[in-house]
Amino acid sequence: MSGHPEMLALIERKKAGEAMSPEELAWLCQGFVAGEIPDYQVAAWLMAVRWRGMSESETLALTRALVASGETLQWDTGSPIVDKHSTGGVGDKTSIALVPLLAAAGLTFVKMSGRGLGHTGGTIDKLESIPGFQVQLDSGRLRAQVARIGCALVGQSNTLVPADGVLYALRDVTATVDSLPLIASSVMSKKLAAGASAIVLDVKFGSGAFMRTQAEAEELGRAMVRIGSGAGRRVNALLSAMDQPLGKTVGNALEVVEAIEVLRNDGPADLRALTLELGKRLMILAGVCATPEKAHQSLERLLESGHGAAKLAELIEAQGGDAAVVDQPSRLPQAPVVQPIESSRAGWIAETDARLIAEAALQLGAGRRRKGDQVDPRVGVRLLAGVGDSVEKGQPIAEVHAASAADAARAEESLLPAYRWAAEPVSRPRPTHLLIED
Amino acid sequence: MSGHPEMLALIERKKAGEAMSPEELAWLCQGFVAGEIPDYQVAAWLMAVRWRGMSESETLALTRALVASGETLQWDTGSPIVDKHSTGGVGDKTSIALVPLLAAAGLTFVKMSGRGLGHTGGTIDKLESIPGFQVQLDSGRLRAQVARIGCALVGQSNTLVPADGVLYALRDVTATVDSLPLIASSVMSKKLAAGASAIVLDVKFGSGAFMRTQAEAEELGRAMVRIGSGAGRRVNALLSAMDQPLGKTVGNALEVVEAIEVLRNDGPADLRALTLELGKRLMILAGVCATPEKAHQSLERLLESGHGAAKLAELIEAQGGDAAVVDQPSRLPQAPVVQPIESSRAGWIAETDARLIAEAALQLGAGRRRKGDQVDPRVGVRLLAGVGDSVEKGQPIAEVHAASAADAARAEESLLPAYRWAAEPVSRPRPTHLLIED
Repeated sequence: MSGHPEMLALIERKKAGEAMSPEELAWLCQGFVAGEIPDYQVAAWLMAVRWRGMSESETLALTRALVASGETLQWDTGSPIVDKHSTGGVGDKTSIALVPLLAAAGLTFVKMSGRGLGHTGGTIDKLESIPGFQVQLDSGRLRAQVARIGCALVGQSNTLVPADGVLYALRDVTATVDSLPLIASSVMSKKLAAGASAIVLDVKFGSGAFMRTQAEAEELGRAMVRIGSGAGRRVNALLSAMDQPLGKTVGNALEVVEAIEVLRNDGPADLRALTLELGKRLMILAGVCATPEKAHQSLERLLESGHGAAKLAELIEAQGGDAAVVDQPSRLPQAPVVQPIESSRAGWIAETDARLIAEAALQLGAGRRRKGDQVDPRVGVRLLAGVGDSVEKGQPIAEVHAASAADAARAEESLLPAYRWAAEPVSRPRPTHLLIED
Repeated sequence: MSGHPEMLALIERKKAGEAMSPEELAWLCQGFVAGEIPDYQVAAWLMAVRWRGMSESETLALTRALVASGETLQWDTGSPIVDKHSTGGVGDKTSIALVPLLAAAGLTFVKMSGRGLGHTGGTIDKLESIPGFQVQLDSGRLRAQVARIGCALVGQSNTLVPADGVLYALRDVTATVDSLPLIASSVMSKKLAAGASAIVLDVKFGSGAFMRTQAEAEELGRAMVRIGSGAGRRVNALLSAMDQPLGKTVGNALEVVEAIEVLRNDGPADLRALTLELGKRLMILAGVCATPEKAHQSLERLLESGHGAAKLAELIEAQGGDAAVVDQPSRLPQAPVVQPIESSRAGWIAETDARLIAEAALQLGAGRRRKGDQVDPRVGVRLLAGVGDSVEKGQPIAEVHAASAADAARAEESLLPAYRWAAEPVSRPRPTHLLIED
């Protein structure tokens, strides 16, 4: 077993809690991508980072080293380039509404997204439920589309940040995903390489999120904002609770419908509020609105006027999809079995646990347990009652959209433990968004 | 990049500070040896162990799992089987005196040793300075020799504890050597597999040892003694300081000469004292002497009578070496250049730093910086004055045994910083040995 002596020295130092220099981190990223540093040494280093953490300047240096491992995009569309990242939640279809909405507002928004894994859904899977929609565009076609309509919703490009790709794959099998500096640098490297000048980060916390507590989410948000500022971008993070799913649906086609509803000036209040809040922040960061109030007003006008919805139709059309779904969401794939779930008791709903609802959707085939698993676009869960609602015994509280009656029966069993009940009235949760600025 | 899902779960748990079960550790050792668990997952686990440590029962279970990965030796010589391990020091030639001495006392002593690396010498390298001496014996020849003369000094067998071999190689390149439970289980697995019923552990601490402080050495000694007891063996650990080299010489042939001197009832006091102390402990653990005083007396008689020296000659003869070296040490390889090092000042010697003296010997070619480096048996350093000695300016304080005058000049430069001086008298260090019993 041979090891790189310089890498051994870096592991020793990180083990002792020391910081790596920018040059050392650049060497490490390049050497690992080039196959010159063995993966077992990088694995030990990753666990030492998980143990000892990284300083703020070290995290920025790692982010820059990741960016430098690949191509970086430049856009010259004449309008501010904005971007957004969510740390992942349950029922989070915000990007599908936000991207066309801000493009309708005159900004350039090229959003690269991932696929779902485990209880977290992926925007790319959701978009693929639109018949014909293509998530991989070659560079020429992407640039032409962005120049023409100001937006795109595509999969991650392999030419951006290759070091993040190989490092993430190694983290995934070595239990080193849950390291704050590694998460922050991974996320921000992709945002920096994609070329936006204004970035909003949607950092979730709670039972359905990667970060369980608000304190952890705040720490991550702050770390990412600082990386962005350090790299000369304007970045805000917005913290929001993810104890209940966002909106009323979990499942690919079902979620696209909800995003369309928001653009049609309808849809669930929490999803609408988050979309407007994130949009507002981007408008201000991009310098096109002076105050949150003005930003809010102009976004609301784009929803009322249908310009946001029209932009989504343009985007779908440009990416080869059936744009008619925007006016007729029923054209999206439908599950053959839709089974109502009835409440077994009367009372107030005190909780609809996001993680357990995600688990039921996963079981139905809406997500993947392992990479490469097939996803069924039709299936999922629709919540008919939420926290604070008073329910009679026998009243339908949810709908299971399933591929078969047997699947639906199994999903019902997984779904019921997601509900917690109260005998006294429970107040409806109000969406709160905590802003982190540099 | 694919990972074993069960291994991922074990890394997660160790990262969280949990203990692995005996079954899990057995699975891990077997799976790694069989190539079923990827080395990058094991590397991350090793760093998590370095971080979180292991409980006492977990360390014992790991030791058993290592032993179970290979063959275990059984001896039926009719006399107690003893063994010894040293954590490694500078100038430590104790085994070469101790093994024949205890065989002369009627015990069976099969000592498997390693090669030197870095500043630590290896008994196998020292023995190979004896012309013709073979350190690798096949199993039949080893058994015949042990049955006939009661002892052997050989290299590690590949059939014992293969899991330790592959784990150690991975630790070596991932900065996870310095983990107490990993050190303790590695050492003890080899001792348990080699079949001794009584084992003495020579745990060094100080500038020339792996463990820098007495507290660390004590912790390691205690951990190893408990593993031994847990596995049903009688084990003692002896802590001794390793701030100065042991004896007066560092270098392969030079050290063999000193071991011979001890067996000829001569030799440096510290080496003689340590040999008798370790021997005494083994006599008591093996149940052949009731008190330390009786053990001491019978070992001293074997030195005075020349029985210990005669046993070394038998051992060298049996392993193909030139047994005449015991009576004529000048038959051992001699360096062409022997250059005295003169004191540049008058005063008392306050310190002869073991690590810096080892570094000078390494530079002369007595050790290896990297595995596979050639070792020159002839070269090394002889100390002519030690801590507490009063020295005149210009008085020789050491001899450099070198392959060339240029080498000798370079070694002199490295050697001088090893000395610390005092203007007032300094007391001579008295060897102290702290005993750890279960």
